[in-house]
Amino acid sequence: MKITIDKKNKAPIYVQIKGEIKRMIYSRELEPFELLPSERKLAEELGVNRSTVLNAYRELKAEGLIDSHIGQGTQVMPVLNDVGKDEVQQSFPISWQHMLSQEALRSQDTSIIDMMKGNSKDKLISFAAGIAAPELYPIESFEAIASIFHEHTYEPFLHTPVEGLYSFREAICKLMERKRINKVPEEVMVLSGSQQGLDLLARNYLDVGDTVIVEEPTYLGAIQIFKAVGAKVIGVPVHNEGIRMDILETLIIKHKPKFIYSMPTFQNPSGRVMDLAHRLKLLELSYAYQVPIIEDDAYSELRYEGDEIPSLKTLDKKGNVLYLNTFSKCLFPGLRIGWLCAPITVIKQLSMKKQLMDLHANSLGQRLILDYLNMSKLEHHLSNVIKVYRNRRDIMISMLNKYAPEGVRWTVPEGGFYIWCEIPETINTRSLWMRAIDAGVTYVPGEAFFTSKQGQNFIRLNFSFPSIDEIKRGVQILMKVVEESLEVTNRLSSDNKVEVNPMF
Amino acid sequence: MKITIDKKNKAPIYVQIKGEIKRMIYSRELEPFELLPSERKLAEELGVNRSTVLNAYRELKAEGLIDSHIGQGTQVMPVLNDVGKDEVQQSFPISWQHMLSQEALRSQDTSIIDMMKGNSKDKLISFAAGIAAPELYPIESFEAIASIFHEHTYEPFLHTPVEGLYSFREAICKLMERKRINKVPEEVMVLSGSQQGLDLLARNYLDVGDTVIVEEPTYLGAIQIFKAVGAKVIGVPVHNEGIRMDILETLIIKHKPKFIYSMPTFQNPSGRVMDLAHRLKLLELSYAYQVPIIEDDAYSELRYEGDEIPSLKTLDKKGNVLYLNTFSKCLFPGLRIGWLCAPITVIKQLSMKKQLMDLHANSLGQRLILDYLNMSKLEHHLSNVIKVYRNRRDIMISMLNKYAPEGVRWTVPEGGFYIWCEIPETINTRSLWMRAIDAGVTYVPGEAFFTSKQGQNFIRLNFSFPSIDEIKRGVQILMKVVEESLEVTNRLSSDNKVEVNPMF
Repeated sequence: MKITIDKKNKAPIYVQIKGEIKRMIYSRELEPFELLPSERKLAEELGVNRSTVLNAYRELKAEGLIDSHIGQGTQVMPVLNDVGKDEVQQSFPISWQHMLSQEALRSQDTSIIDMMKGNSKDKLISFAAGIAAPELYPIESFEAIASIFHEHTYEPFLHTPVEGLYSFREAICKLMERKRINKVPEEVMVLSGSQQGLDLLARNYLDVGDTVIVEEPTYLGAIQIFKAVGAKVIGVPVHNEGIRMDILETLIIKHKPKFIYSMPTFQNPSGRVMDLAHRLKLLELSYAYQVPIIEDDAYSELRYEGDEIPSLKTLDKKGNVLYLNTFSKCLFPGLRIGWLCAPITVIKQLSMKKQLMDLHANSLGQRLILDYLNMSKLEHHLSNVIKVYRNRRDIMISMLNKYAPEGVRWTVPEGGFYIWCEIPETINTRSLWMRAIDAGVTYVPGEAFFTSKQGQNFIRLNFSFPSIDEIKRGVQILMKVVEESLEVTNRLSSDNKVEVNPMF
Repeated sequence: MKITIDKKNKAPIYVQIKGEIKRMIYSRELEPFELLPSERKLAEELGVNRSTVLNAYRELKAEGLIDSHIGQGTQVMPVLNDVGKDEVQQSFPISWQHMLSQEALRSQDTSIIDMMKGNSKDKLISFAAGIAAPELYPIESFEAIASIFHEHTYEPFLHTPVEGLYSFREAICKLMERKRINKVPEEVMVLSGSQQGLDLLARNYLDVGDTVIVEEPTYLGAIQIFKAVGAKVIGVPVHNEGIRMDILETLIIKHKPKFIYSMPTFQNPSGRVMDLAHRLKLLELSYAYQVPIIEDDAYSELRYEGDEIPSLKTLDKKGNVLYLNTFSKCLFPGLRIGWLCAPITVIKQLSMKKQLMDLHANSLGQRLILDYLNMSKLEHHLSNVIKVYRNRRDIMISMLNKYAPEGVRWTVPEGGFYIWCEIPETINTRSLWMRAIDAGVTYVPGEAFFTSKQGQNFIRLNFSFPSIDEIKRGVQILMKVVEESLEVTNRLSSDNKVEVNPMF
């Protein structure tokens, strides 16, 4: 009989001994009529006073679990009710795979997990991340705010309303005014990252078989979320100025989509900006066919050149645009704070679901960012990071200019985090990725951003996360890998120029 | 023409003017061939230099959006592509109600939102909350930890892996060792509150029409989550020592449930503890019929008397128990940090879904609690709050003893947050609740904790949140309301003792 006691535990030792023996009796580690060690022996073994063991045995006796007879020692009594008596016959483990729901079976893609693993700066040079440069996080401002722990007493540790802290929603409204989005706090819901906003919208409005139209390429997390709830996700090609509107209208008529998901400014992954004319046309289609638009505006603060174009939400006069944004790209991602701006009806409907999902976004994160916004330091921070990111983009572009082999093309984005790079179709991109990782560089393969097998000849390169040195070395390495792959492919294709003789 | 410029905006004034005019042209606020004000006039109006307006007009001209002819002034040019030309005919708003998914339609219960509103200490004395006493939050310890902002540089603001910070999962394992749950970090997933754990499990394993068996009464959030994903939720009555095992076995055979959801220790709302024999029997049924158990262990640290009983997870030898816990009850709820302990296969399957829901739980909260745990202060904090809560419970009980009218019964829980109170069935509990709120006290009506219309003669009283003074005043007020309602009912029922004469 092996009893473990913990002298630092607040429960008295005799209670611990009693509890252990009780457990062993019920779990059949001690069989009925098995002999317990004598009080003296057990006390010695455990290094405790004999009276401690005595107390434990006395209480166990009082509960009828053990009994002692002179000359026979102390015995385990058969537990009176028949519980636990029968041996469990079935010993095979539960098949968790067969437990999976339909939704889970549609969610088996690990791309995002893989990408997030690529965030560590350990060994690889990562162009795969989608995150702001950590060395630029305005920690010093937050150090000042941290007095929150002293000043605000317990509010930052309590629940907030499901929709978020009201004062924070007011601050978000003020922030959106800079984009000429003039809304009231009741039209804002704080989210555990804008990722949750997509999930919340999907669960609240999409049934199996519903259709969502997305730009193609587009944010892979959005594609996955819509597919996970069983929606049909249809891509409409993006060209330089925005969505192909003629195709979009045809698709709307044919598929009657529940939503159009769009990232009009510094689109992830293409970096493209939809021009004003296309934005107005998109809204017109939304009004005409009664299809709401989910506008994902995560990157718009990060403009390195060119004129600001009003967001869809700014231009929207009828409440058709559900506007998602986040603090993850302009500040940092770890606090998991994003928001949705939408008609009050929508906010109310979503809060029914949100209460069940996680009650509300974390209070401390809301309060920290609220205090930061009230310090009016965001603008200054943005102008800082914009300078840095612009420089990193320019360096990545100049390295591409210098080292990219013929046939490789790329965008020069006016803002955001990504360069969208097209490589000759002859290259096997899956093996390219493996080679790149072997050589010390990673990125996100283009096919992740398409609704179906496409985009194999694209790669997404992030320039916000890596350092200048990493960009320089990384692009050189990567382009060398591309060049070598091209050479191999060319050699193979010239080898393959043999005539094909039919078998008969 | 009304142009707004923002001198604090980082964009040059001429760019702002240009952008505004461009927007007005595309949105048809300015009609084709409409005259713009002269450069001089606009400059005066806006209080800017004339050359600023000149620059804006020059760029607009270059883009073909305006043109100027001597003697005619500056005119808006018709926009070349036909975008935005057609008037939008349909002006009716989107019917968001008709947009709702099946899942959303099953999630229209606002009970939790209502309860969370009842958390404010403003006017009502609230026995409705389910939260730890804010005045006991160990803020002073966290003040020390807040040096995190300085020390840890940017890690607490970055992403963590989907499953949570590895070092935090290690600390959670150490915490669970105190309950003799010996697991590795890979078997732990950090959640945005244990509420999210229920949602995650529901989405990952339940399809429409699946069955879940719950104790009855039980946590209302669990009932709602299971129902929201379309599961059939069947309640099995709880008596003093735990679930009625005979009924449970019959239900398992009949309904082949996907899960059994149980809160064996200090059950919410009943406060009851399942004894060891029942726990072992429950596991036996789980093994025999291959039904996993979701064990919700949120309250077990808060024991005011009696011996600790091993958790189901502690007793489980086959990995059938999925164990949920949270820091919300023993510390504070605002950080939204809970965890699941489950077989590695389950953790892997769930992380596929979690990445789409919100990527991961907030990093800062994880880090703060990790540092707190490493300071070994939790045990001391718990012994503090246990003293306070035990006292509050005792006072609430003594007030009930003193003021409860005949026919009112209640539990004396050995731990947790709640007293479960039964009032005579003659009382109309919906009107009782309204009367109580009018009188200044709120609680949660019992029916919220049942899967179907039942429990109207129960109320849940929380004693962790209100102060001693509030408990004293609140119970007096509430019992007076009950007494008055009883008098009214008795009077009505004696009035009703008239003979009923059939109409013919």
